[in-house]
Amino acid sequence: MDVRKILLTEDEMPRQWYNILADIKMNPPLGPDGKPISPDALAPVFPMNLIEQEVSSERWITIPDEVLNVLSIWRPSPMVRARSLEKALGTPARIYFKNEALSPPGSHKPNTAVPQAYYNKVFGIKKLTTETGAGQWGSALAFACSQFGLECKVFMVRISFDQKPYRKSLMAAWGGNCVASPSRETKAGRDVLEQFPNSPGSLGIAISEAIEEAVGDTSGQTRYSLGSVLNHVMLHQTIIGLEAQKQMKKIGEYPDIVIGCAGGGSNFAGLAFPFVLDKINGKKVEIYPVEPTACPTLTRAPFAYDHGDSAGYTPLLPMYSLGHTFVPAPIHAGGLRYHGMAPTVSQLATEGIIEPKAVTQLAAYQAGVLMARTEGIIPAPETNHALACVVDEARKAKEEGKEKVILFNFSGHGLIDLVAYDKYFSGELKDYVLSQEEEDKFEACLKNYPKPQLLKSR
Amino acid sequence: MDVRKILLTEDEMPRQWYNILADIKMNPPLGPDGKPISPDALAPVFPMNLIEQEVSSERWITIPDEVLNVLSIWRPSPMVRARSLEKALGTPARIYFKNEALSPPGSHKPNTAVPQAYYNKVFGIKKLTTETGAGQWGSALAFACSQFGLECKVFMVRISFDQKPYRKSLMAAWGGNCVASPSRETKAGRDVLEQFPNSPGSLGIAISEAIEEAVGDTSGQTRYSLGSVLNHVMLHQTIIGLEAQKQMKKIGEYPDIVIGCAGGGSNFAGLAFPFVLDKINGKKVEIYPVEPTACPTLTRAPFAYDHGDSAGYTPLLPMYSLGHTFVPAPIHAGGLRYHGMAPTVSQLATEGIIEPKAVTQLAAYQAGVLMARTEGIIPAPETNHALACVVDEARKAKEEGKEKVILFNFSGHGLIDLVAYDKYFSGELKDYVLSQEEEDKFEACLKNYPKPQLLKSR
Repeated sequence: MDVRKILLTEDEMPRQWYNILADIKMNPPLGPDGKPISPDALAPVFPMNLIEQEVSSERWITIPDEVLNVLSIWRPSPMVRARSLEKALGTPARIYFKNEALSPPGSHKPNTAVPQAYYNKVFGIKKLTTETGAGQWGSALAFACSQFGLECKVFMVRISFDQKPYRKSLMAAWGGNCVASPSRETKAGRDVLEQFPNSPGSLGIAISEAIEEAVGDTSGQTRYSLGSVLNHVMLHQTIIGLEAQKQMKKIGEYPDIVIGCAGGGSNFAGLAFPFVLDKINGKKVEIYPVEPTACPTLTRAPFAYDHGDSAGYTPLLPMYSLGHTFVPAPIHAGGLRYHGMAPTVSQLATEGIIEPKAVTQLAAYQAGVLMARTEGIIPAPETNHALACVVDEARKAKEEGKEKVILFNFSGHGLIDLVAYDKYFSGELKDYVLSQEEEDKFEACLKNYPKPQLLKSR
Repeated sequence: MDVRKILLTEDEMPRQWYNILADIKMNPPLGPDGKPISPDALAPVFPMNLIEQEVSSERWITIPDEVLNVLSIWRPSPMVRARSLEKALGTPARIYFKNEALSPPGSHKPNTAVPQAYYNKVFGIKKLTTETGAGQWGSALAFACSQFGLECKVFMVRISFDQKPYRKSLMAAWGGNCVASPSRETKAGRDVLEQFPNSPGSLGIAISEAIEEAVGDTSGQTRYSLGSVLNHVMLHQTIIGLEAQKQMKKIGEYPDIVIGCAGGGSNFAGLAFPFVLDKINGKKVEIYPVEPTACPTLTRAPFAYDHGDSAGYTPLLPMYSLGHTFVPAPIHAGGLRYHGMAPTVSQLATEGIIEPKAVTQLAAYQAGVLMARTEGIIPAPETNHALACVVDEARKAKEEGKEKVILFNFSGHGLIDLVAYDKYFSGELKDYVLSQEEEDKFEACLKNYPKPQLLKSR
């Protein structure tokens, strides 16, 4: 019997995260005045120890024991050889995946929720606020807060709140308090409701509410938490790739291609950044972030300065952006419906160190169903996008007759997103490809902002 | 940092199942004529290789490599030290659990679905039929069938089918075909619909439909599959306890108390039977199956001959039974709403080798929420019943000041049963305790059947 899972013991867990800011040049975030913002300006929103991580250029940052202890609930995650998938594709490629679906909430999100809760706790914070779309991030933060005895308040986009009532119960099981946004609990929410009493909400509104509740706590004991995009979030996720490197080494393999789906960029970065370091150091490896054709940030948008939220409250970040007013088509991979992209991931794309790909929704589900029926585990809608690219690359390897090693991130399971599979099987799912007309709009949205420099890290 | 998970490698997976029929005396199943049935009588329903396992008295039965290969998708399962739970309870007890929630469908059910699909495949069968209540068993069988290229048809009780539409999608993702029962596809279903066009269905009706579809296939290539109660199902589940014994040995521990929730008995038996063997061989260990007070088969019902299904199609089995016409109160742990109990588990209870306990629904959810907020994983409603007993025993250990070692089975996660947590938090969940009036009814239901002998195995 061939070994399926390459395991690490808890003792073999990485003791440090990898900080890519040590190895690439970055444009700074800008304030409303167009000038670089100082870290202090973020102090009402984030605790200072996380702000220090956000701007640090130390290559290796120690993971506190208290964080490792909670991560050990499900980490190290297995690296799995997908022999059944290889066989179904008839490919000579060897396909491996990191299974990040084994965390309690079922995705990679707690890899950063746990350290964020920990650092806030250490800083004396009592309560975290955040927004959530489909609910994956909100659940992860509720889980993490329960581990450190923090209060957790989640503003969930109203339309998802109504369509997915059990996400609220999931957060409640961990003691989290989830309210539909727009809510009457903040001025931002009340203002929207006054104008649009039946507003379905948006991530932009939910972010505004979460930030308002955090900075509005006059005791200073509440902060806001974000699940993607920021540098410290990418940092925390690198434990995925660092584990994968150890696991590859154990079996004497090294990937030719590393693949992850990319919305805000965090699961992709988590797997890919340690391999980016290898690449910077001369190793040959291709690295593909995969996005939906409906929201093709890296593949169709310009590299620009833009806000991280649709309301324009955040600093201007140097990133590929479809424009903060862009509303993506209603694809089911909620985690990939984001107008921007993590600045670190964006910088790597401008330099050609990583090579973005885009796939259609139907190709993604087709690959997801193949995964379910071969490897036996049902992927989240987001993960299906990575899988579509894996299938493409495995077929190419077959055509070329090459024994390529492909590594991808299985970022989450689909057990609480089955409605999309239902629609796929009943033929209701559609493909969306960005039109030229839409592309023209985001150029207009961005035209008054400064342009980032085209920096070369090497 | 203390190690949390005691892991085994795939190489350390048990190579044999433990068959308790080698070590206990059993009353035989009886046919409609009151005489012991011959194994051949089951041939239209089950493949002969599984019937041989059902009646075998070999103590150790080899697990085929093909089965181990599929089990290795999630096995060996971790044994976890629940330090946070211990701390929250302030107990000197050391609490360990086997995490069976990591299988693709999220419960222990695939431990038997996989070998059942395999043996049917080997026997030349092309299609399996089964019934499912809440959907856990149907999903597990759909998953297993997809691994061996078998067709899978699941008759799901109508009321659950309507309340839990995504269970159908889950089965569909694995290629399974799930229909609401009563259906128009079988005579049994049509007969019910003629009389009661709006019938909510029942497990009894669904079993009848599944058996009819299996035996009615004139090509002889369809069989029926059952997820609990039968001897070969208990056999397949013993991999849980055999792994746990290896894991206990690795850390130099041995349990004082072994706990599992019990509906039909399979997850309890899976963990407990290998420890029952130790007990028979003189080891000191207490073993508790835990059932709901709403369906107190082992704690309130007589040891009797009764049918396994409510329609009375199955042979008469020697077991504790609330009577096959018993309809349990609507508790949310669907997997524990069964009128009978596996004959092997029943036999051990008559002999006092295991000591049944019953807990209320509210105590179960209270323990489940404590588990979620300490160990971080959200238990299935069924698993909560085991947890209520664990909490009781940990508190007793505290009162007695004893360092007891408690081992329990975390049989499944609650991510697709969150509605019950919702009701628990909103105060809608009720406790149910069987009334004397109800107890009188099951005596009446059983009075015309033969009585099993009170056998002593030792």
